[in-house]
Amino acid sequence: MELSKRVLEMQESPVRKLVPIATRVKKQGKKVFHLNIGQPDIETPKVFMEAINNYDSKVINYSFSQGEPKLINSIRAYFKRDGIIFDEDEVLITNGGSEALTFTTIAICDPGDEILVPEPFYTNYNGFTGGVNVNIKPITTLAQDGFHLPSKSEIIKLITPKTKAILFSNPGNPTGTILRLDEMEMIAEIAKEFDLFIISDEVYRGFAFDGLKGISMGSIKGVEDRTIIIESVSKRYSACGARIGSIQSKNKKLIKNILKLCQARLCVATLEQVGAAELYKLDDEYTAMIKDEYQKRRDIVYSTLQKIPGIVCEKPSGAFYLVAKLPVEDAEEFVIWMLEEFDVDGETVMLSPAEGFYATEGLGKDEVRIAYVLNTDAMIRAMYILEKGLEKYNS
Amino acid sequence: MELSKRVLEMQESPVRKLVPIATRVKKQGKKVFHLNIGQPDIETPKVFMEAINNYDSKVINYSFSQGEPKLINSIRAYFKRDGIIFDEDEVLITNGGSEALTFTTIAICDPGDEILVPEPFYTNYNGFTGGVNVNIKPITTLAQDGFHLPSKSEIIKLITPKTKAILFSNPGNPTGTILRLDEMEMIAEIAKEFDLFIISDEVYRGFAFDGLKGISMGSIKGVEDRTIIIESVSKRYSACGARIGSIQSKNKKLIKNILKLCQARLCVATLEQVGAAELYKLDDEYTAMIKDEYQKRRDIVYSTLQKIPGIVCEKPSGAFYLVAKLPVEDAEEFVIWMLEEFDVDGETVMLSPAEGFYATEGLGKDEVRIAYVLNTDAMIRAMYILEKGLEKYNS
Repeated sequence: MELSKRVLEMQESPVRKLVPIATRVKKQGKKVFHLNIGQPDIETPKVFMEAINNYDSKVINYSFSQGEPKLINSIRAYFKRDGIIFDEDEVLITNGGSEALTFTTIAICDPGDEILVPEPFYTNYNGFTGGVNVNIKPITTLAQDGFHLPSKSEIIKLITPKTKAILFSNPGNPTGTILRLDEMEMIAEIAKEFDLFIISDEVYRGFAFDGLKGISMGSIKGVEDRTIIIESVSKRYSACGARIGSIQSKNKKLIKNILKLCQARLCVATLEQVGAAELYKLDDEYTAMIKDEYQKRRDIVYSTLQKIPGIVCEKPSGAFYLVAKLPVEDAEEFVIWMLEEFDVDGETVMLSPAEGFYATEGLGKDEVRIAYVLNTDAMIRAMYILEKGLEKYNS
Repeated sequence: MELSKRVLEMQESPVRKLVPIATRVKKQGKKVFHLNIGQPDIETPKVFMEAINNYDSKVINYSFSQGEPKLINSIRAYFKRDGIIFDEDEVLITNGGSEALTFTTIAICDPGDEILVPEPFYTNYNGFTGGVNVNIKPITTLAQDGFHLPSKSEIIKLITPKTKAILFSNPGNPTGTILRLDEMEMIAEIAKEFDLFIISDEVYRGFAFDGLKGISMGSIKGVEDRTIIIESVSKRYSACGARIGSIQSKNKKLIKNILKLCQARLCVATLEQVGAAELYKLDDEYTAMIKDEYQKRRDIVYSTLQKIPGIVCEKPSGAFYLVAKLPVEDAEEFVIWMLEEFDVDGETVMLSPAEGFYATEGLGKDEVRIAYVLNTDAMIRAMYILEKGLEKYNS
């Protein structure tokens, strides 16, 4: 009764595995500022619950395997605002961006195939690929370059006959980096030359600061048939617990085949789709409001970090994360110490050790990801506690 | 830009692939009685929507990867009624029984491994295994035996070093067969002798007619560490669109490893878990009421089928399906003909061709699955239309 190699080899989520420690110290009465998980404190727009509360069917029926037509059309209209046109049969609703990525991986890779991913990357990419026997080949990016891509020749070196796709999140989790247009065009060029799919995880689109505009990969010409866009309501609409994501692609054959996977699992929760359809209707004013709020939070975090001796961190331009090199040897040990041993008047801060965001052994050991998902007052307090914690830890 | 072999080789859901035809004829004004899908017309108990409507958090937060503690405890209490004890860390909440089965498969099988499944079986088992490169080895069961298991020696013949588990639904979809205690004990014996896991899909538990009691595999002694129970609110509580399932096992190592897969996809929809926690609290009176209703429906279907010349069908004792051999050569052609060419006063019936429920080539070609999920009046009318349809088709 052995378990499978694939599950035994899978790492525990580095973001979630320290949760039991946090739960324990909170039970003991400590207050924990959670900067370790991308769970925003922003109110979920009321239209979401209103739509669900008004749902008037007596039976909570199966939805369509492809998704609720209302939600699909709402998403299509959202993309259309940026001139990106998807037909009705080019969108699939999924159980969060997570299922969107798992299904995409299954549909384009057989066991042993490879996907290129700039590192550090969203750690759960390991789960979506490892569970279905696909390997991630990291494209290393560096803090001192603001985590931008290396040159085309550096990337091409990593391609083998097993390489099927390039996957990246843009704006980036955990880096907060927004790809420049020339980087996106380079990706498109490589994909065409080596016949690869492009999987563009755009769940943080809209979180673009300092006047930047996060461009969707859907706007890049000449690669429409090989571009797959991953969407989610979790972050933009602060509805993480709704678990509504989607896959968009002009490659109808791909969508038709992923639909087979959707059919096997029948459908995504009906009520959540009803609510999510309303979220995508929110106008640009909503997005601008959200963006301004997060820019303020980013500024607080970044300016505090600048003042702490020994921290290396470029100013991030998007999403709501940043990766910082701390003046410690082992960031995970520091994070656990902050939870278990340290507090300022009964309060402490929880961060994510960044090692798990790298595929290359040894990278990120002294780095953390900070999610600036709390209101500005809480962020100011949390940064103060972090500063004091580092002082004490290193004394 | 090839798609993966595993997705290309996957069959379209035989239950869902004819849906576009039904949608088209309905648009043209035809009324279709849907006996093709296990979507009950029974009202979802009001406690489900009430709990959701009373949910008072301003942010729809992530839930725990393992699931909401309230729901987990509610499920534990449900099993305890039958003397089956699960600890808190022996239950995982999943996106329907579908995800429960996919995760279980990934956790106990590597690519190329095999799972024994009595056929005909729930066709989506193909999706949950094929997508992750696991092969189903069918144990053929026959209509004339009421789809009960063959002898131990017949089953053992199918076991190879690649065999990791026996999977079955009990009560059975699509057969409506309830395993006898001696069959369950035989499965336990085989599992022990050949060191296999037992995956018991019990989403139809409670639907047991004629005084029979569907026994949970969790009651069978001596195999607790190798038994995995798959649960769902979809059928018992008529909440298919909620997508709440769960995995139960006394094998803590297994649960701990499946939790890694749960962590990668973060969580199951928060609101649906809040609602589902109330469903599992419904008492035995509710289950008895549901069972009586379905028994009435079963009787209508079975007695009509008995009168139609050329139909072979044993009386099913559970779930809400039966498999019938029709006096036609190709059941799929007949189902399409019923949709496109036939009606009684503008009304017709949709059934599921059963071929897709078999893994052995050639079996089930003249069989259909009938889901008796509509109220008794509708079932009487639908059976009348089926009878007339068969008459005309064969004339």
